[in-house]
Amino acid sequence: MNGTLYGVGLGPGDPELITLKAARLIEGATTIAYPTLAGGDSFARAIAADLIGPNVREIRMDVPMTTAREPAQAAYDKGAAEIAKVLETGENVVALCEGDPFFYGSFMYLNARLTGKFTVKVIPGVTSITACAAESGRPLVARNERLTVLPGPMDEATLRDRIAGAEAVAIMKVGRHLPKIRAVLDDLGLTDSATYIERATLPEQVVVPLSQAPEKAPYFSMILLTKGADPWL
Amino acid sequence: MNGTLYGVGLGPGDPELITLKAARLIEGATTIAYPTLAGGDSFARAIAADLIGPNVREIRMDVPMTTAREPAQAAYDKGAAEIAKVLETGENVVALCEGDPFFYGSFMYLNARLTGKFTVKVIPGVTSITACAAESGRPLVARNERLTVLPGPMDEATLRDRIAGAEAVAIMKVGRHLPKIRAVLDDLGLTDSATYIERATLPEQVVVPLSQAPEKAPYFSMILLTKGADPWL
Repeated sequence: MNGTLYGVGLGPGDPELITLKAARLIEGATTIAYPTLAGGDSFARAIAADLIGPNVREIRMDVPMTTAREPAQAAYDKGAAEIAKVLETGENVVALCEGDPFFYGSFMYLNARLTGKFTVKVIPGVTSITACAAESGRPLVARNERLTVLPGPMDEATLRDRIAGAEAVAIMKVGRHLPKIRAVLDDLGLTDSATYIERATLPEQVVVPLSQAPEKAPYFSMILLTKGADPWL
Repeated sequence: MNGTLYGVGLGPGDPELITLKAARLIEGATTIAYPTLAGGDSFARAIAADLIGPNVREIRMDVPMTTAREPAQAAYDKGAAEIAKVLETGENVVALCEGDPFFYGSFMYLNARLTGKFTVKVIPGVTSITACAAESGRPLVARNERLTVLPGPMDEATLRDRIAGAEAVAIMKVGRHLPKIRAVLDDLGLTDSATYIERATLPEQVVVPLSQAPEKAPYFSMILLTKGADPWL
């Protein structure tokens, strides 16, 4: 009997936003796996740190910082092979993922490589979009409103197009795309309904109107556009 | 000093998908509040049941089953007044919300009535969209894909329009709108990439291709359209 691969969502960053199920799986894990960026620390591991036992095997996947796909593919190939070896002994593996595993999560790359061969179970987590809405104090969507989630790296014309026809909008992965996004929102007259959030739910969190956003945004930053639901129902 | 109102997301239904923070707040609560539909049971209360102490004051808001707004407004007015009375004594109140409080959550109606007058803190929860993706085993969005979240009650033309221009789509609150949604997806040739999920993460959960969906869908049902990310990175 092979072991099961668990893809466990850890939420946006505050360790208390881990679910009871994720906490139970991590505390019981004998092998965990997680990506690190360019050999640095792993954000996912940091969120879960207090739940990881002292004698746990850790499979690190060092994903290089490059836009080329091949080096990252190679890192996930190698990680998946290591994980497969453990699963073949009948042991389970818990893969740690910031946010939610299937919502822009790196776990998809493990899932693609190992599903079918092994039992894979995904434990959903709190996403950054609702965490950012909670921290901003502004409801995201109500009643029959639509929500559009857009990644910041989209090209300017597509971004403008998608925002123009939208109601509530969450723009993810803002980072170095902040000037472009700011220009689009200014142009559409939407700057005043936009909130900028970085490192949501962490002690160093920033929540400000977009007009007061810093010049440089970290990768974990987001812009929420909420047109103001009908809050009284 | 007034008390604080906590709007606490409970996730999609499995009590283990409650966050550690929500669990701590509910276990420590002396007053909880939650909506019930037409005097029936409260789904939110059922999710949290094991965490609620024996001597807790419970403020029920009986929201009538009608599309007219006034009766529901009256229910939230009455609930907000009861909650305000408790907050004025300096005691905190924990409002229970299925899913996430600011993502189509009923908590917004309390927030609108009480924010500004009292300190309101929102604890985000796992939303049904990522829970459904997890249970379906299909990634929702990866890399630079867009996600569009649409409520089932939208009219047919708007629904068709929004789906036609979209990548990944989550259609919420399917319920009695299933035949209409099915017709739109059939027409757009998208039925084969659609998954139907009802009561995600509960024991009675259903996950099937849309072509095998039942004739009648409960309110807590969803359709996910995933065009299949590039899973290898």
